[in-house]
Amino acid sequence: MSETVKYLLEENRLPKDWYNIVADLPRRPDPVLHPGTLRPIGPQDLEPLFPMALIAQEVATERMIEIPEPVREVYRQWRPSPLYRARRLEAALDTPARIYYKYEGVSPAGSHKPNTAVAQAFYNKEAGVRRLTTETGAGQWGSALAFAGAVFGLEVRVYMVRVSFEQKPYRKALMEAWGAECVASPSSETNAGRQILAEHPNSPGSLGIAISEAVEVAAQRADTKYSLGSVLNHVLMHQTVIGQEAMAQLEMAEDYPDIIVGCTGGGSNFAGIAFPFIGAGLRGAPKPRVIACEPSACPSLTRGRYAYDFGDTGHLTPLVKMHTLGSTFVPPGFHAGGLRYHGMAPLVSLLQELGLIESRAYTQLSCFESGIQFARTEGILPAPEANHAVTGAVEEALLCKEDGIARTILLNLCGHGHFDMQAYIDYQAGKLEDRAYDEAELAAAFATLPQVAVA
Amino acid sequence: MSETVKYLLEENRLPKDWYNIVADLPRRPDPVLHPGTLRPIGPQDLEPLFPMALIAQEVATERMIEIPEPVREVYRQWRPSPLYRARRLEAALDTPARIYYKYEGVSPAGSHKPNTAVAQAFYNKEAGVRRLTTETGAGQWGSALAFAGAVFGLEVRVYMVRVSFEQKPYRKALMEAWGAECVASPSSETNAGRQILAEHPNSPGSLGIAISEAVEVAAQRADTKYSLGSVLNHVLMHQTVIGQEAMAQLEMAEDYPDIIVGCTGGGSNFAGIAFPFIGAGLRGAPKPRVIACEPSACPSLTRGRYAYDFGDTGHLTPLVKMHTLGSTFVPPGFHAGGLRYHGMAPLVSLLQELGLIESRAYTQLSCFESGIQFARTEGILPAPEANHAVTGAVEEALLCKEDGIARTILLNLCGHGHFDMQAYIDYQAGKLEDRAYDEAELAAAFATLPQVAVA
Repeated sequence: MSETVKYLLEENRLPKDWYNIVADLPRRPDPVLHPGTLRPIGPQDLEPLFPMALIAQEVATERMIEIPEPVREVYRQWRPSPLYRARRLEAALDTPARIYYKYEGVSPAGSHKPNTAVAQAFYNKEAGVRRLTTETGAGQWGSALAFAGAVFGLEVRVYMVRVSFEQKPYRKALMEAWGAECVASPSSETNAGRQILAEHPNSPGSLGIAISEAVEVAAQRADTKYSLGSVLNHVLMHQTVIGQEAMAQLEMAEDYPDIIVGCTGGGSNFAGIAFPFIGAGLRGAPKPRVIACEPSACPSLTRGRYAYDFGDTGHLTPLVKMHTLGSTFVPPGFHAGGLRYHGMAPLVSLLQELGLIESRAYTQLSCFESGIQFARTEGILPAPEANHAVTGAVEEALLCKEDGIARTILLNLCGHGHFDMQAYIDYQAGKLEDRAYDEAELAAAFATLPQVAVA
Repeated sequence: MSETVKYLLEENRLPKDWYNIVADLPRRPDPVLHPGTLRPIGPQDLEPLFPMALIAQEVATERMIEIPEPVREVYRQWRPSPLYRARRLEAALDTPARIYYKYEGVSPAGSHKPNTAVAQAFYNKEAGVRRLTTETGAGQWGSALAFAGAVFGLEVRVYMVRVSFEQKPYRKALMEAWGAECVASPSSETNAGRQILAEHPNSPGSLGIAISEAVEVAAQRADTKYSLGSVLNHVLMHQTVIGQEAMAQLEMAEDYPDIIVGCTGGGSNFAGIAFPFIGAGLRGAPKPRVIACEPSACPSLTRGRYAYDFGDTGHLTPLVKMHTLGSTFVPPGFHAGGLRYHGMAPLVSLLQELGLIESRAYTQLSCFESGIQFARTEGILPAPEANHAVTGAVEEALLCKEDGIARTILLNLCGHGHFDMQAYIDYQAGKLEDRAYDEAELAAAFATLPQVAVA
């Protein structure tokens, strides 16, 4: 047995600022477009959905943005989160690599999502908002916002993708324990939902549909705003506490990553661990290789087009420039519900275009295999989403063995799998399969990409 | 919103020793008796079940017993565990009390149980044992031993009370993810199991039956030993890292408990938080009131006899002097499976006899109500077992309000409720009820208490 090594930061090392990578990029992100006019939007266009403080963060260009003290107070319940050296996994792989994992499953909701949920709830509360709407796939984001709503005294209404709603009643129960309401999407409460149900009464739902519902409700009510768990610039920025802490923790270990891996659905946990290191690299520090690990059944970074597209199925959201499979794309069934999104965060997409990150797609069976190996060595059962990052790290560690080089690998273990046990049951019973997406469907989804004149 | 306050110990403050309260008690515990002869047993009688190192700890009288470094290395993955000041709960209760909770849900298995599972797996591995058997009720203990077995490379076979096995497939899946085998008890694999099944083919099982099965298998195989998750002296001692850490953390807060509350099933998490403080009190420090909180449907401390009794239904285990409802007692259905045991740890029982602790029984509905209040204020969803401790703390905090006195309350939040969501669903849907045990059944169970001549 090898030694357990944990790098814990003192509480006074909790980051004081979020890091905004826009300040260090060689070019500015492309503008966000209005869904009606297809012209660049202004802050006032977003006001029905978000409080001004968050809109300002969405377009901010300064490098560091101060974290309000009430947000840091809530963060302190579980932050700084631990960084571990995965010595038992290294031994099992017989690799010379040094593998570190940052563990975000210590938050009350069990993932990295509260890093932004708490911030978003705070700014909405400050702005006098009474109620938040949002969507959730696997339920990690919905439960994070339910937790944050409980802390700040906000009502929370979550539209949960119907197939997950039915498969994962315990996620709904967790949200309700925190006092939130959770509704299966498509629902009959919204125009967007009713429209889908009219055509497809048995629709399993999708993140794109659920976003349409949540946005529609928020836009209609003055006391209600909308909250998104990934994709947007401010959301990714809130997650950079992860990477900033990891950097300080690796300093304690007198190490620096050669390789950083994270899983990508909308891109926020990946951005959280990677952006501070990429930014440091752009300012002269060593440049780690940064690898985004996505599911091969929903491969926005490895197969998507880099184009303007809608964030939702109902085309209510603004358009952003991103890697997208097309807003109508519905991936085949697989168990990492948090990675089932047709698009990718504009900033992550831009970084790939700039050659600052790589991306890879993995099948779910290979990911569950890595997850079980991780559980049996490191003792923590990862969420199916996090298994993609573990798979990427294991692949790199085995390459280190082949090459005989002791590289340092940093992975973001973004959440635990306590609410994903059915997936593990199915995997261990041999019931899971790797289902590919339909190429014709993908082509059809690509054909829906809006024609946009803006460069 | 009130400030979140966390007291984190530096890793070098992880306790170096377990604390053995026997050293400080005014009288020695009564001897353990052989199930056949009803005479005091010697170490060799326990050798088929336990490695000698654990048998020595079971009868040890020295105050401090060194924690082996390999055990501390595994502890370091999550220890020292955090102590929190429950300011948001205090505000909701409008109480002058200062409520602190020690949170053991941060372990990989989600409860305090790994504190002893890791130690037991280590000593068994050292003794050349290849395989461990054990029982589990709700599954917290079984998963903790599965985790420890994965870390030390031991096979683990868990007999899980059938009703829990069927209600909680995710606990089984967690054990299997760590490589353990989990079997519904009563099973047809053992004489004890077959005997029960012959009489009651649909037996829901009980901890007492599952213990019989696990003990039977361990006794028959030279490479296999038995592991128990509570009740025994050495198990309680392994949990004292909790209280030792809490004492150091309260010192950081410049506070000391007036009242300590813990939930009791077998007694181990309660002992873990309370014994170091009780021992300090016996050596001259202030004496906190210490309150054991148990379910009113299985009230061993508040309604049990203080008598010699078997630990299991099949009468394979030695007899211990304890508060017991009788080894045939089967409590009515309730959701805190970890508290459904007919007996109580002999050391906890002795402390009650010595007037060093108090005990109280709570109904499950009142406990779930407290649990939801805790989740909505402190953000952590407690296990149903832990809700008993929360209920005791809330009751005391409200008394502080009535009395206008700012007492310091320390509670052990022994685990999270991520694997107990069905219970929360049933509670929130109004489907749970408070079922009392049958007085006639209790009288019948009392009548089975063995006649023992030893004083």
